[in-house]
Amino acid sequence: MPTRIGEKFSEWFEWVIEEAEVYDYGRYPVKGCGVWRPYGFKIRWNVLKIIRKLLEETGHEEILLPLLIPRSVLEKEKEHIRGFEEEVYWVTHGGSDELDVKLALRPTSETILSLYEALWIKSYKQLPKKYFQICSIFRYETKATKPMIRVREVTTFKEAHTAHASFEDAERQIAEAVEIYRKFFNELGISFIISKRPDWDKFAGALYTIAFDTLLPDKRALQIGTVHLLGQSFTKAFEVRVQLKDETLDYVWQTSYGISERVIAALISIHGDDRGLMLPPNVAPIDIVIVPIYSVEVKRNVMEYVDNIHKMLVDHGYNIVVDDREDYSPGYKFFYWEIRGVPIRLDIGLREASSNTVTMVRRDTREKLEIPIDKMVSSIENARSSIMENLRARAWKWINDNILYVKDMDEALKMVNNGWRGILQVPWCGRAKCGLEMEDKIGFRTLGSPIDEDEVIGNHKCVLCGGEGKTIMRLAKTY
Amino acid sequence: MPTRIGEKFSEWFEWVIEEAEVYDYGRYPVKGCGVWRPYGFKIRWNVLKIIRKLLEETGHEEILLPLLIPRSVLEKEKEHIRGFEEEVYWVTHGGSDELDVKLALRPTSETILSLYEALWIKSYKQLPKKYFQICSIFRYETKATKPMIRVREVTTFKEAHTAHASFEDAERQIAEAVEIYRKFFNELGISFIISKRPDWDKFAGALYTIAFDTLLPDKRALQIGTVHLLGQSFTKAFEVRVQLKDETLDYVWQTSYGISERVIAALISIHGDDRGLMLPPNVAPIDIVIVPIYSVEVKRNVMEYVDNIHKMLVDHGYNIVVDDREDYSPGYKFFYWEIRGVPIRLDIGLREASSNTVTMVRRDTREKLEIPIDKMVSSIENARSSIMENLRARAWKWINDNILYVKDMDEALKMVNNGWRGILQVPWCGRAKCGLEMEDKIGFRTLGSPIDEDEVIGNHKCVLCGGEGKTIMRLAKTY
Repeated sequence: MPTRIGEKFSEWFEWVIEEAEVYDYGRYPVKGCGVWRPYGFKIRWNVLKIIRKLLEETGHEEILLPLLIPRSVLEKEKEHIRGFEEEVYWVTHGGSDELDVKLALRPTSETILSLYEALWIKSYKQLPKKYFQICSIFRYETKATKPMIRVREVTTFKEAHTAHASFEDAERQIAEAVEIYRKFFNELGISFIISKRPDWDKFAGALYTIAFDTLLPDKRALQIGTVHLLGQSFTKAFEVRVQLKDETLDYVWQTSYGISERVIAALISIHGDDRGLMLPPNVAPIDIVIVPIYSVEVKRNVMEYVDNIHKMLVDHGYNIVVDDREDYSPGYKFFYWEIRGVPIRLDIGLREASSNTVTMVRRDTREKLEIPIDKMVSSIENARSSIMENLRARAWKWINDNILYVKDMDEALKMVNNGWRGILQVPWCGRAKCGLEMEDKIGFRTLGSPIDEDEVIGNHKCVLCGGEGKTIMRLAKTY
Repeated sequence: MPTRIGEKFSEWFEWVIEEAEVYDYGRYPVKGCGVWRPYGFKIRWNVLKIIRKLLEETGHEEILLPLLIPRSVLEKEKEHIRGFEEEVYWVTHGGSDELDVKLALRPTSETILSLYEALWIKSYKQLPKKYFQICSIFRYETKATKPMIRVREVTTFKEAHTAHASFEDAERQIAEAVEIYRKFFNELGISFIISKRPDWDKFAGALYTIAFDTLLPDKRALQIGTVHLLGQSFTKAFEVRVQLKDETLDYVWQTSYGISERVIAALISIHGDDRGLMLPPNVAPIDIVIVPIYSVEVKRNVMEYVDNIHKMLVDHGYNIVVDDREDYSPGYKFFYWEIRGVPIRLDIGLREASSNTVTMVRRDTREKLEIPIDKMVSSIENARSSIMENLRARAWKWINDNILYVKDMDEALKMVNNGWRGILQVPWCGRAKCGLEMEDKIGFRTLGSPIDEDEVIGNHKCVLCGGEGKTIMRLAKTY
């Protein structure tokens, strides 16, 4: 059982997703591909339910686009293909026939959707239009792959694509998208910082990119969501034009934004502990596990009582498992369900049966409470909100404890050379040259600058050139 | 507006999926690929909800397997690869690198799952095990493609895979799978016949295949579901062995069963009419559309009344659209929502507002009823069940009217040559030679024989050889 925090984090992560039967990775003969096992699939489903709801409430419509993209379509937007061409998988044969046109496995769907928008959208009256899809995308990663974090088949890509009549409306959409993701991560209790990526790190084809990063237990930053203002680059390439109110024709303005199973990797990593998963109650596949504890003589009494409790809780809509496996000890079962991160456990033995109580154990604090039956449901509800709050608070404490503002380059270098890891913030003049040089010197990658003015600290000089510090640059070891 | 029944059916089908904005087909540069548009996506989602529920209730667990299959894995079961090799798409390049191992886009997932079962399943105590996934699969179809019916990217493949300790338990599973599909099609009001496919038409690698066929309005049969007893062919190839109760080792027994978006094609085709879709209430994305009817003077009165009705219905949990578009006439709106198959329409004008009524119009019968507000919800509920029953009854009448038993070959040939189409049943000796010759002579394809003894009619002689008619053979023009 490896330790979650620190250098062994990767080992811990691989251990937990295997032991908790979340995601089978590393045993498939194609590198970077894995399997969502039943328990993991349910976590994934519950996470997707939250984002689906947030998107639907804001007028996004779910669709499903083709996976195969002909080379000619992928190539239409020149920046885009330049950004992706080294990571695209190509289908070249059908049966024993060589195909006339090479087909890419979609790395993302801006090109396909633009092609359809040209067919579907004719007038500004149809705008804004907001689509999303949840699908697999493919990236031929040449770097070392990591389960859920750097994979070749991204199985849980949620990509949203919107179309607007003006630049202003597209920027309003960017704000909406940021707000949606903020709510989404907040519902999952995942802490994050939001940065405008530097120009050298924006999405291929976009005007700019805003990204959500979280900090994993090894203190490396993980990008968990991105929001792109695409502008008119794709709509010009694909001739997506509409009639405006004044009857002139103009190219549509687009945005796109995405998340992937990295969200689930973050959920697992940030909330877990050395004993295994610790799932927020709103995404846990099992709300409560009941472990009956009895010797042969009292089994019948205990099990009758357990059945009643079980029924009561099912009537309240909880997903319950009664772990009545004969061949395993209670201790084994505690361990088993802790690894799986079930938020609440009820231990029920003769003592509880005789006193009309249950012993409730929270997964997060592992605190035990004996509760009279008539208070059981309200206690469970309280524990559920308290667990959620606790996980969220811990996650924010973690990231906040590991963000540091340093206004002097020597100091920064000294810290980093002494092994400091986290999100480093330094004053920056805003010039690419200085940004790129910081990366080289510090050995961290740039995450970008705050999008909120009030996150820009102080009024210090650029750590590199000494020029006016117009903003701050954030840097971290990244995935 | 083409006619649904008869030779123009294909045209009607393409018209309706485009006009109702279900599925965009034929405008993508890759043949056999289409787009689920928002309205179609919701129908698809509701259909999948029904099958997910039926599968979960019977202990099936949802998973997600990789899309890419290395050639060596796909080749392991020899019959299987022989059955699929001409229709597999091959990925050969990543970026500009040629891959060491060619990767197939999954045509189905028996091979991948067997590989994992060898890792996951160790003891008979874990059996039976039932998995399913919903995903895209790919077939390099060289025949003419048809939207949802014969596509290269099958976007809505629901494949279930089960593992068992004995042949008997696997056969029990076959019966369960047939029962699940029976319920599923019944909930959708789709009529069907169930046949055991002849040996020459079973799934590549299976011991036998049972198929569900329905009859489209052009009187061609469409396979909408298949259930395969795989036996031990894949488990032998992939070394999936478990310890049995008596501590010996044996290969696991498997079944698999699948449906695809053909179910949705059937749903659309069988229930629709010349005016468009006619959706069963349990899968319709919109339950009720309200069309307000007013002149300028009374608009305010009418709209106040409409808002009240709207609120009442939303409180009852219905999905409602109030079509208050200014630029369109009521007549246009009637037409618009009829194409989309919304089960119930409420027309509300001054007359209704003054008399506290609504005018309810059923999509199926187009019957109009004026209903007092206090009876509105119960009338809607009655109409919903009545629409469901009506659609189901019409579907069964359709298939039953077009199944014919003929015991004499000359008679059968005369009919078919005179243009008769439908499902032909003839007495059959059970020998492949006679079955294949029937196909040739009649120009229909064999669907197979009933799985229920009592569906075998009479005791007549094989129409071909004159030998003992052990069963009947069904034949039809097929997709």
